[in-house]
Amino acid sequence: MTSLSDLPLRDDLRGLTPYGAPQLDVAVRLNTNENPYGPSAELVADLASAVSGMAAELNRYPDRDATALRTDLAAYLGHDLIAGQVWAANGSNEVLQQILQAFGGPGRTAMGFEPSYSMHSIIARSVFTEWISGAREADFGLDPDKTVAAIEEHRPDVVFLTSPNNPTGTALEIDVIKRVLRAAPGMVVVDEAYFEFARTGTPSALTLLPDHPRLIVTRTMSKAFAMAGTRLGYLAAAPAVVEALLLVRLPYHLSSLTQAAARVAVAHRAELLGMVDELRAERDATVDWLRGRGLEAADSDANFVLYGRFADRRAVWEALLAKGVLVREVGPPEWLRVSIGTGDEMAAFRAATQAVMEEVL
Amino acid sequence: MTSLSDLPLRDDLRGLTPYGAPQLDVAVRLNTNENPYGPSAELVADLASAVSGMAAELNRYPDRDATALRTDLAAYLGHDLIAGQVWAANGSNEVLQQILQAFGGPGRTAMGFEPSYSMHSIIARSVFTEWISGAREADFGLDPDKTVAAIEEHRPDVVFLTSPNNPTGTALEIDVIKRVLRAAPGMVVVDEAYFEFARTGTPSALTLLPDHPRLIVTRTMSKAFAMAGTRLGYLAAAPAVVEALLLVRLPYHLSSLTQAAARVAVAHRAELLGMVDELRAERDATVDWLRGRGLEAADSDANFVLYGRFADRRAVWEALLAKGVLVREVGPPEWLRVSIGTGDEMAAFRAATQAVMEEVL
Repeated sequence: MTSLSDLPLRDDLRGLTPYGAPQLDVAVRLNTNENPYGPSAELVADLASAVSGMAAELNRYPDRDATALRTDLAAYLGHDLIAGQVWAANGSNEVLQQILQAFGGPGRTAMGFEPSYSMHSIIARSVFTEWISGAREADFGLDPDKTVAAIEEHRPDVVFLTSPNNPTGTALEIDVIKRVLRAAPGMVVVDEAYFEFARTGTPSALTLLPDHPRLIVTRTMSKAFAMAGTRLGYLAAAPAVVEALLLVRLPYHLSSLTQAAARVAVAHRAELLGMVDELRAERDATVDWLRGRGLEAADSDANFVLYGRFADRRAVWEALLAKGVLVREVGPPEWLRVSIGTGDEMAAFRAATQAVMEEVL
Repeated sequence: MTSLSDLPLRDDLRGLTPYGAPQLDVAVRLNTNENPYGPSAELVADLASAVSGMAAELNRYPDRDATALRTDLAAYLGHDLIAGQVWAANGSNEVLQQILQAFGGPGRTAMGFEPSYSMHSIIARSVFTEWISGAREADFGLDPDKTVAAIEEHRPDVVFLTSPNNPTGTALEIDVIKRVLRAAPGMVVVDEAYFEFARTGTPSALTLLPDHPRLIVTRTMSKAFAMAGTRLGYLAAAPAVVEALLLVRLPYHLSSLTQAAARVAVAHRAELLGMVDELRAERDATVDWLRGRGLEAADSDANFVLYGRFADRRAVWEALLAKGVLVREVGPPEWLRVSIGTGDEMAAFRAATQAVMEEVL
């Protein structure tokens, strides 16, 4: 039997393991920052109707440029954006990969400030872009002067900022983004996957697009939009950036089904985003509760909370799992991340955590 | 207004134009080798029902490994394949990209025998793999000795064979594939996107898998399966090859919708593949008709025919388009490619071609 080590795999992939949280069948899944609220029966009916309406044409290739969907997404984002400034792909992972294929690649560098979304560095490496890891402060924020200095030192071709940041929940001040835009010699990607959960008044990097043609703001339908199963990531940028991505996107990358489903989701945005306020309240309550138990919890503008510290976080993770609560081992070594679920799920999380603290800690 | 030339695009992408046939709203579309027969009302109803059944969970990420779908695809392919030997992605383009990310990349080479499917070389370049273009004979076949000699000379890390070949329609003898497998130092990809259209008795490279752990056979649902809008490509290979692809696939690359739709398609394979015989008969009749008009037409085992020669193929292409018939300008400079459509569409193609020959040639 041939094993992986017998195959002519690229040397830089040898010994790696596939990325991804365990997909376990557990009662309370708080590990991948999904929105716990599924679509309504009305939305499901509209989706089935949309699929029925286009399925007779499924023998034909999709609209390669997904123009109708991009028009809808531009209208959702606002800020006077038009379809030519918006691009979409199968999850923000594919959006990020396309960005790095166009503006990164061999001989080029990408830089992020970690801990952050680990797919940034993984995708950079998988398209052969050297990764430079910048640092965050103890509170997981970015110090503007140090951040600018790091960019000036390394002069990366692509800078990743993540706001709110995963797995820490930290939103960036708009002034930090502006200073990075002035300092960066290449493209600046602001990953706003969790933006809809930010505290009221947090400005989006979308407001900076008119003055910054090298800025790319990425979003997703997987989080606030409660459509993780649809796999729809998107971005807003200057039209020339979208033209660049057309050179590297795989033809017909976005299926007719995905385009139709995402359009239904945009049409139902009031419903899908309707639980965001409740999730923010649960998040703030979760931070308070954890701190009340003597734990540390990072301030969060997202739908998750990074908390700790645990000398043996694996033991805590396993003890929670044994009680039917799945959280994520991610981020700095002594921390865990819990996604914000329904009220019932968070009650289960609190009860399990309380019990585990008495047993294990 | 920032233009593409103002952006820090990779140098190797400068001056390129996006790949893709024009998507024109024309009565008779015979340009992208789609199956002209859309799904039945029964299949559409089953698809809508499958979407309804899973849509309440669309807030959750899909099964990252698409195990149920891969099990179904393995059963469809036969040859005692199991799910662990099958992989799927968003179209065979993404399958091919993943193969090159794992086994190609900077410092490595990929080789194909052209004219062939142009995405092989485009995807190789987009993941920074040097492309080596091998030659075909005048009849578009591969000479075994010359092919082996070319592989021994260049020692490519990945060899692409395409059978039946696009855009020529040429199927490979199984002995050529065996000789390439013996000669190739790395991976060998046999792209069987059009295999279901091959003439009766043509063996699939799947029969060679048990003895060849470096062989990868790719397939698609876009052609015979009449599901181009679903974007589902897949492959069969040794389990270790699938393990390698897990290292480079984007997490959750295949949406829940795509997985569900593809499973419905496999379940309805009798219907979807039911028109293949009719398309083969239309194809053979098209070859005969073109030859009867004094044109050259390549023997075809696919759902298209390469025909010519035209000193000014662009003029012929435009004249056909003016009559509402869209064919493809692809392949060697004096040839055009026509996809096989319904009986009515092929009658329209013949009438338009007859008229154009009288007007233009």
